[in-house]
Amino acid sequence: EVREHLKTPIFDNWQWEEAEMMVLLQVMYTDLDFLMVFHIELEVLQNFLFEVYCHYNNIPFHNFQHCFCVTQMMYGLIWLTDLRNKLERIDLFIMLTSALCHDLDHPGYNNVYQINAQTDLALRYNDISPLENHHCAIAFGILSKVSLMLINVLILRCILATDMARHNEILNKFKVTLPVFDFKNKEHKEVLMKIMVKVSDISNEARPMAVAEPWLDCLLQEFFNQSDTEKLKGLPVTPFMDRDKVSKPSSQTNFIRFVLLPLFTELTKLFPCLEQHILEPVRRALEYYSNMEKATQEEAGATKS
Amino acid sequence: EVREHLKTPIFDNWQWEEAEMMVLLQVMYTDLDFLMVFHIELEVLQNFLFEVYCHYNNIPFHNFQHCFCVTQMMYGLIWLTDLRNKLERIDLFIMLTSALCHDLDHPGYNNVYQINAQTDLALRYNDISPLENHHCAIAFGILSKVSLMLINVLILRCILATDMARHNEILNKFKVTLPVFDFKNKEHKEVLMKIMVKVSDISNEARPMAVAEPWLDCLLQEFFNQSDTEKLKGLPVTPFMDRDKVSKPSSQTNFIRFVLLPLFTELTKLFPCLEQHILEPVRRALEYYSNMEKATQEEAGATKS
Repeated sequence: EVREHLKTPIFDNWQWEEAEMMVLLQVMYTDLDFLMVFHIELEVLQNFLFEVYCHYNNIPFHNFQHCFCVTQMMYGLIWLTDLRNKLERIDLFIMLTSALCHDLDHPGYNNVYQINAQTDLALRYNDISPLENHHCAIAFGILSKVSLMLINVLILRCILATDMARHNEILNKFKVTLPVFDFKNKEHKEVLMKIMVKVSDISNEARPMAVAEPWLDCLLQEFFNQSDTEKLKGLPVTPFMDRDKVSKPSSQTNFIRFVLLPLFTELTKLFPCLEQHILEPVRRALEYYSNMEKATQEEAGATKS
Repeated sequence: EVREHLKTPIFDNWQWEEAEMMVLLQVMYTDLDFLMVFHIELEVLQNFLFEVYCHYNNIPFHNFQHCFCVTQMMYGLIWLTDLRNKLERIDLFIMLTSALCHDLDHPGYNNVYQINAQTDLALRYNDISPLENHHCAIAFGILSKVSLMLINVLILRCILATDMARHNEILNKFKVTLPVFDFKNKEHKEVLMKIMVKVSDISNEARPMAVAEPWLDCLLQEFFNQSDTEKLKGLPVTPFMDRDKVSKPSSQTNFIRFVLLPLFTELTKLFPCLEQHILEPVRRALEYYSNMEKATQEEAGATKS
């Protein structure tokens, strides 16, 4: 009931303690789906709101309660005008957050006073909207701690997921979600995003042979560089990088069989349309390198005999 | 035609110079609507892409071209799987950007080498995915310069718009858009967001009288504090803050007539449903304070005669 009341301009701020307002602000961010859409952890939001709270001053009007009222009115307007279906979620986030931060650290004296009294703020901002510029400066200090986290945490997780040492762990997680996959489920979405980055990362063999094969030469060159250095330094040599042990076809057939096909097959279960686009080219590549491998072996056999 | 080709796994990277790839990356970010949705200036995107480009090394495989291929495959997969209609735009942004950044500053030697050779990276990350952690660290250095800007620029503009000295400028801008308002138009959206923050900021009189009136007392208290200080310091005294000149009703009737009603009326033109929620309460408040003003004047007249 309070939740619904919060969406209207008749909400009465005077009935609530500041600690309760903090919870209500949390409800606003949650009920506009910001936590879900922007991957914000509840704790991050709470820290952010607390920082905002700490940066309003104990003055008669431009205090935290005013901040709450303005944010609550914005929240109400968003619902009343059905802006959720007219604007992007990020626009709503910007609007609500602007309302929340719009008077941060207000000193209780307006711009005219700042300019006439030649305060630090007026000097700092050359008499141009000194208060509003100051609110922004404080807002960015607070936001820089948290807003980066919004997007970056997920990017971090996606990039860390490309470490092939974690290949099975992530693929298995994805497999478990498949029978019940839900695009609205946060965990499902996250593992899908990781799988998509992983698939893209090792997708060369899903490209036309003429595109993919030069890449294999590049990769082997980098591998051989490494194994040469390893030999030079007396470090353990990674077998699949050793120019004396690895051949182009053998290196690919195993990689395609045991890494690419299992991974691409799982993604194709979720998106059957990918069959022709990524699975079939990889199967063709496997055949191509298998034949090459056989030919090499027969050649070797022929030379030997 | 290239634009469409770019959406498929058969795109051939070998036909393009690195400078052209930069443009193609720009096309990917643009065609997924990231510039529009996240309010990214083209120049900011270009700087970001250039920073990314500069942080890939000239090595055989894990170079900028590999970065391009992985990003292009991600881009193709997003279109092929119709993820644009299944995930939030921010998820797509995270996925494409993860692909773009996933091998930043790769040294050409893999994790096993880093750990065996006890490189700086292995020491720094305690042997845990040293390369991937390093890619992330570089990514965040680049992203912190630009990703903050994504959201913050708009928040800045919204907060700066609350300076009442710019009231007419912003209201007039909004008026011009009204006859042709388009929720997909970037400029229209921006001025609407500013107007929404402005309306929320000065929306007390749109609340029930019992909620609004105490706020007026708070405001006058802050005003009187300021004018007292101004008198004390011999600074010019703002007339509407002077406790000797201003009365509760007179301060409100003018504010409602000349600021609130014109502003709220324009917003209600775009959202007629707001009439009852914000316009009517404000009209009632005007009547209330007008009556109070008259009563005060009559009282003053009665006392005088």
